[in-house]
Amino acid sequence: MPEPIDFHFDFSSPYGYVAAHLIEPLAQRHIRSVTWRPTLLGPAMKVSGNQPLADQPLKGQYMRHDVPRLCRRHGIPFAWPEPFPIATVAPARAVYWLWDRDPDQAVAYAKAAYRAYFADGRAIGDTDVALAVAAEQGLDAEALAAALQDQAVKDRTKAAVEASIKLGVFGSPFFFVDEEPFWGVDRLPLMDEWLARGGW
Amino acid sequence: MPEPIDFHFDFSSPYGYVAAHLIEPLAQRHIRSVTWRPTLLGPAMKVSGNQPLADQPLKGQYMRHDVPRLCRRHGIPFAWPEPFPIATVAPARAVYWLWDRDPDQAVAYAKAAYRAYFADGRAIGDTDVALAVAAEQGLDAEALAAALQDQAVKDRTKAAVEASIKLGVFGSPFFFVDEEPFWGVDRLPLMDEWLARGGW
Repeated sequence: MPEPIDFHFDFSSPYGYVAAHLIEPLAQRHIRSVTWRPTLLGPAMKVSGNQPLADQPLKGQYMRHDVPRLCRRHGIPFAWPEPFPIATVAPARAVYWLWDRDPDQAVAYAKAAYRAYFADGRAIGDTDVALAVAAEQGLDAEALAAALQDQAVKDRTKAAVEASIKLGVFGSPFFFVDEEPFWGVDRLPLMDEWLARGGW
Repeated sequence: MPEPIDFHFDFSSPYGYVAAHLIEPLAQRHIRSVTWRPTLLGPAMKVSGNQPLADQPLKGQYMRHDVPRLCRRHGIPFAWPEPFPIATVAPARAVYWLWDRDPDQAVAYAKAAYRAYFADGRAIGDTDVALAVAAEQGLDAEALAAALQDQAVKDRTKAAVEASIKLGVFGSPFFFVDEEPFWGVDRLPLMDEWLARGGW
């Protein structure tokens, strides 16, 4: 079996949201699975010196135009949430906790959380909202509530974020095919080719 | 006649170099011409707060891997120049001066200057090198040498850079189709679609 594609994303990243809609069909074409790895761009930005896109003059303005255009192109529901960006440690922890129990549930939850934020404007960084999304997915919200307070889950998430920075992840989405890095939803066509050709 | 595609680029931008190889076939498919608009990212970065990619931890490291990979994919000759990045006002001025006389010559010169830097490692920011490239293209290097010192050419270039910032250009390459902005060489497939469908 070929290695899974690693999909690093921040729940506050609109380009990660778009990628969450596109990565699975792409991976399936190459008989690859996808490992969903929520990360937190805040700590990565401390290393990289980047700032949130929304705060950047010119670039932030472009992004505000670009994201809805990209979503219209792909038929992905989208409305700018307020506030934006947000801290996303709660849904990230939820995904890691779920992943260790049932990766399919973790992926379904990740998609639901992304949709809650970028389509429905719900503040998924708030623990209550992160739990409500889980309950709507038929997950055990009580067990998840306990998990979000569990030091082991906190440590697991922190270690995952640190590992992603160590791998060079400075933005979202960020993919690895075997050890080859691809940054940005725009790079999916190139990654598709890389997978088809086995590199070049 | 449809409007030309505006192609903003910095001569020190490797992604602009790649785009310089790809933009014309794309434009021709849509019966569009291309207006080549060299700009200087330094002043844009003062507005946007961006830094040169090469200086950014993680992101700079990714770029050093990504650019050669992209060039291999497209069969574009490439070798990292030293120093990198460089100030590129000399070739920018040359292009604007040539453009006002003969756009085809300006484009041929722009391509030659890009190749001199990113394939042959020649420091095109130095006036002598910028002039040597012109001479190799059969251009009147003596007239160009005078033009590079001409206040009118300096002002023309400065005005072009300021106009690009006013349009929101914060990176290279940056394109406008009619008034629609597209940033990055990765966005050429999307721009291609936009041109084919007339937007969405």
